[in-house]
Amino acid sequence: MVRIVGIGCGPQHVTPEASAALRASAYVVAARKGADDPLLAVRREVAAAHGLEVVEVDDPTRDRDPVDYGGAVRDWHAARAAAWSSAIAARAGDPAFLVWGDPALYDSTIRVVTATGLAYEVVAGISAPQLLAARHGIVLHEVGAPVHVTTERRLAEDVAAGQTNVVVMLTSGASLDGLDDWSIWWGANLGAASERLVAGRVGDVRPALADARAAARAEADWVMDVFLLRAPR
Amino acid sequence: MVRIVGIGCGPQHVTPEASAALRASAYVVAARKGADDPLLAVRREVAAAHGLEVVEVDDPTRDRDPVDYGGAVRDWHAARAAAWSSAIAARAGDPAFLVWGDPALYDSTIRVVTATGLAYEVVAGISAPQLLAARHGIVLHEVGAPVHVTTERRLAEDVAAGQTNVVVMLTSGASLDGLDDWSIWWGANLGAASERLVAGRVGDVRPALADARAAARAEADWVMDVFLLRAPR
Ligand SMILES: C[S@@+](CC[C@H](N)C(=O)[O-])C[C@H]1O[C@@H](n2cnc3c(N)ncnc32)[C@H](O)[C@@H]1O
Ligand SMILES: C[S@@+](CC[C@H](N)C(=O)[O-])C[C@H]1O[C@@H](n2cnc3c(N)ncnc32)[C@H](O)[C@@H]1O
Repeated sequence: MVRIVGIGCGPQHVTPEASAALRASAYVVAARKGADDPLLAVRREVAAAHGLEVVEVDDPTRDRDPVDYGGAVRDWHAARAAAWSSAIAARAGDPAFLVWGDPALYDSTIRVVTATGLAYEVVAGISAPQLLAARHGIVLHEVGAPVHVTTERRLAEDVAAGQTNVVVMLTSGASLDGLDDWSIWWGANLGAASERLVAGRVGDVRPALADARAAARAEADWVMDVFLLRAPR
Repeated sequence: MVRIVGIGCGPQHVTPEASAALRASAYVVAARKGADDPLLAVRREVAAAHGLEVVEVDDPTRDRDPVDYGGAVRDWHAARAAAWSSAIAARAGDPAFLVWGDPALYDSTIRVVTATGLAYEVVAGISAPQLLAARHGIVLHEVGAPVHVTTERRLAEDVAAGQTNVVVMLTSGASLDGLDDWSIWWGANLGAASERLVAGRVGDVRPALADARAAARAEADWVMDVFLLRAPR
């Protein structure tokens, strides 16, 4: 049994349910994206707190700007599945995967483990959008209204299709052109010491966003950000 | 300082961050919807585990089928804010509110506490859609695609507007007419002993959904359900 365990945005988010799943596991498999992968340090900390060894598997390289996005993702998943299968076959006992945030949001672990054919179970974790909302003290939607969770790559298309309340993930510091009158609640490196928050009218806070993003990166050597955008009434 | 603390769908989801917020609080304020409110029992259990007294405040009655939905919600929030303010004014130390799931999703606690004018901070909790995804072992969206989180009341409108991957909350056992070829991943009473799961093609599982919903209600005396709907390709 493979356990895919959401650890939220740090050890402070590891639920009792996640801890129980880790105690039932024999070791942790961690994909290593690079020698300085910042999230690997958090995984090591959580594993150590549960007395588990971390088996680091080098991540196959991925085409970040492919012509065929779906095809490139599938190839990458197949290469990861093969690497993980051999790491697991070589060991006794149940492996656990520690997933940043929630395995149900913009994470490939479930899809890759599915491709290995191994049985698995999933434990939910606190996701980045939830921590964003908590830090700003907001609800992610207006009363009785929807919230649309999307990627920066899809943002323009989803706004054009009429979305007015959008959480944006998989960001890279886009310009938010044409959204000056929208409200933004933004956060970087949420849950880490380098956390930064900005909120306001997009047209007013654009320089503050760029500064805060640069400051988070300078402090931590990495930056991940997420934001909620809401159209003016 | 009021602490609004998400407790997920049970004690197994109370994060270390949530526990720390509770340890920093002097008592818990809980809205009582009725003498047999099932979620009140969970709140009592979490409070007891942190050595906190539960101050139960009767919830003002709410018009469940108003002509003016927004106005009715505002009136109800104002009545709750008044009730909570007097409960808090009568006591020393910081109050905590224990919110089912995540305070950022379809929960009025943040809005009501805002109306009291008191300073507050929020701790995120595992939401029902996350637990749904974990139990079914799925990601909430297709690769790189969005997920739209909405209410049953808004579902037909959102589908008509082109949504093809929708999490539906605030449900009451609707018929899902016209969605026979969509896929559904459904769960009731997630995290409780009475939990039920159903997945499949809507047209095939409609009787199973009705049965499982009735069985969950019969077992627990209450039922709450949430589901993911995905259009055929
Ligand atoms: C590959 S996705 C993983 C999301 C994760 N599974 C979750 O539930 O939050 C990574 C994206 O999530 C967001 N993100 C993850 N962690 C974050 C953090 N600590 N602070 C801000 N954004 C974060 C960013 O948008 C980033 O591009
Ligand atoms: C008032 S909303 C509160 C949502 C909560 N704040 C959260 O984050 O999940 C209640 C709705 O959430 C869903 N829900 C909450 N708890 C649930 C559970 N344990 N199982 C299934 N659905 C649940 C149902 O759709 C229900 O109508």
